[in-house]
Amino acid sequence: MERVATMRDVAVRAGVSVTTVSRVVNATGYVGAATRRAVEEAIAELGFVPSASARGLVARRTWMLGLCLPDVGQTQADLAEPVRLGPRVEVVTDDEAAPGVLSWGSLYFGEVVRGAEYAAWQTGYTVTVLVARPPEAEARVRDLAGRVDGLVVVAGTLPDELLEHVAHRVPVVLLAGPRPAGGYDHVGVDNARGMRVLVEHLVREHGVRDAWYVGGRAGTPDDVDRFHGFRAALGSLGLTVPVEPALRGDFSRATARRLARRLVSDHRAGRTPLPGALVCANDETALGFLDVFAAEGVPVPGTVAVTGFDGIDGGRTSSPRLTTVEQPVTDLGRLAVETLDACLANPRLPRQDLVAPVRVLLRESCGAH
Amino acid sequence: MERVATMRDVAVRAGVSVTTVSRVVNATGYVGAATRRAVEEAIAELGFVPSASARGLVARRTWMLGLCLPDVGQTQADLAEPVRLGPRVEVVTDDEAAPGVLSWGSLYFGEVVRGAEYAAWQTGYTVTVLVARPPEAEARVRDLAGRVDGLVVVAGTLPDELLEHVAHRVPVVLLAGPRPAGGYDHVGVDNARGMRVLVEHLVREHGVRDAWYVGGRAGTPDDVDRFHGFRAALGSLGLTVPVEPALRGDFSRATARRLARRLVSDHRAGRTPLPGALVCANDETALGFLDVFAAEGVPVPGTVAVTGFDGIDGGRTSSPRLTTVEQPVTDLGRLAVETLDACLANPRLPRQDLVAPVRVLLRESCGAH
Repeated sequence: MERVATMRDVAVRAGVSVTTVSRVVNATGYVGAATRRAVEEAIAELGFVPSASARGLVARRTWMLGLCLPDVGQTQADLAEPVRLGPRVEVVTDDEAAPGVLSWGSLYFGEVVRGAEYAAWQTGYTVTVLVARPPEAEARVRDLAGRVDGLVVVAGTLPDELLEHVAHRVPVVLLAGPRPAGGYDHVGVDNARGMRVLVEHLVREHGVRDAWYVGGRAGTPDDVDRFHGFRAALGSLGLTVPVEPALRGDFSRATARRLARRLVSDHRAGRTPLPGALVCANDETALGFLDVFAAEGVPVPGTVAVTGFDGIDGGRTSSPRLTTVEQPVTDLGRLAVETLDACLANPRLPRQDLVAPVRVLLRESCGAH
Repeated sequence: MERVATMRDVAVRAGVSVTTVSRVVNATGYVGAATRRAVEEAIAELGFVPSASARGLVARRTWMLGLCLPDVGQTQADLAEPVRLGPRVEVVTDDEAAPGVLSWGSLYFGEVVRGAEYAAWQTGYTVTVLVARPPEAEARVRDLAGRVDGLVVVAGTLPDELLEHVAHRVPVVLLAGPRPAGGYDHVGVDNARGMRVLVEHLVREHGVRDAWYVGGRAGTPDDVDRFHGFRAALGSLGLTVPVEPALRGDFSRATARRLARRLVSDHRAGRTPLPGALVCANDETALGFLDVFAAEGVPVPGTVAVTGFDGIDGGRTSSPRLTTVEQPVTDLGRLAVETLDACLANPRLPRQDLVAPVRVLLRESCGAH
């Protein structure tokens, strides 16, 4: 490997002072157009790459933002498998509608990152991604906070203390979940309102009287809010309001399929009725029920309606196609970064609490068609 | 906001020297267990977060890796729309099987990032994500190269010159695409072999004699290799080998649907036959054809078989379910980071060229069932 070019090398090549090179590199002062061009040419010719460490000390800005994402257990299960290697092409008959590997987390993950990266690019930042996994989550997050200008943290990712800790160091925007107590900037969706509108539709348009809520991972903000919306809809329409979800999943398709198989066999053994509708905490859960109902010959929506929440790709092409509440996930990623950028540009800005609208998408699985 | 704690504050609180604090923070020398605990407690109490800029200069390692992803035009089209705001819940009847917003790029994106982040976490790094978009791609990538210990670059993302430029500065691992010429470390899949095995299956098991290849974006390594595999299969079986793809898409579902509508109308006007199979460059393209064939009443696989490539979620639940070649996308992200880590630990390591195996998944759309 060649010797790495320094700022001094660039200055010599361009026939200017190191200060001038520094100004061009760090965009910290006026440089005439011709001089700037000469410096840029020298940078290109020498393959000079400015050192972020040196520059960070000068500019006090790293132009990096951190994005902390939760470790959604199931989602990461496939990653625990060792990587396979080699050129052999296996031919597999795939009868499974869904191996259950991809789940809520991974899709949410990709879309939030995609939106955040895009907004960061537009505002001049890059995004560093970190999944806060035990047991080192705390040390890793602290470390990240020391390397970036600000952090986007997905709700429920960090314990309150750690959040406060890093918020002392850099601005923090919370993404999703309920409006936070601690005076953080926040971007989110109205989970409860979206679910409420969906359930009101089921009751008013399809005459459902006995909807069951199928919960996600207990205690997660999304699950709590969606169940709240479910209860609010039933309450407002004078129907019985349940205290707990009728069934409890964990947002994963695999778990939903286990619940569905048990429900069908309990029903056939005469131990339980089937409800008029299964209102699922997320799409993956709903798709798990659709998988089993299709295999077991339970007509959807004829015998039981099934609805989801999130608006993932799989629900668009499932059979029947899934009625759901679509989350603007990429928009959340974009909004979070835009909010962080605004806050960095003007630290005196009042706290933001932005709500990106959800949409109820009526498809086949609720009986709309 | 309170004054930010410094390393000196930590040293005073813990009753040790700044050097000792530095050793703990940077893991650069021996510190006894009790002393280490005292320093860690002081760090927690004061909310001290080490400055990456200061530390980078000391340690010469940033413990950050960069991940450069391509700008897949269509994929990002949704991001150009302004973000919607407000609590209003719209209720929409969604008759479209696929608005064509999510495409190859976004799913690939999420899964590569997910795998890379996981491997980075395991090896002690964090991952900074950058989509190399014009017109500032070059400046952004150079900048990123100055901030990280190494780069993972998805094939086709950067022009050769820029790649060479950054490879002078930090180790680079290329992800996907063909084996690179320039002596880079590389992790990839055998696109050609996977496609070849799939097409041989169509010919041998389903008696297809007139398969058409539906290309992706022209000139992309994935498209070139897959078409190569398509040709190799036909050649080895003594069938006519086409010089060009019969149809040319761009990896997006929306474009595929336009191609499909034209094919159906040309066919009905007697201008073209329908082939026995449409072998698509990727799943999104295949799903676009399935969308239109379902709407127009063209039986799949009865009249025409349709196959994809990638193994995205939508193909598992489409109707009919999509026969495809599954790429180990998360594994590629993991392998790339592991390769980079190995190279950083031992720069004298010979160049790696790792192949992660694809799998042919036989489902309904090729007539397997």
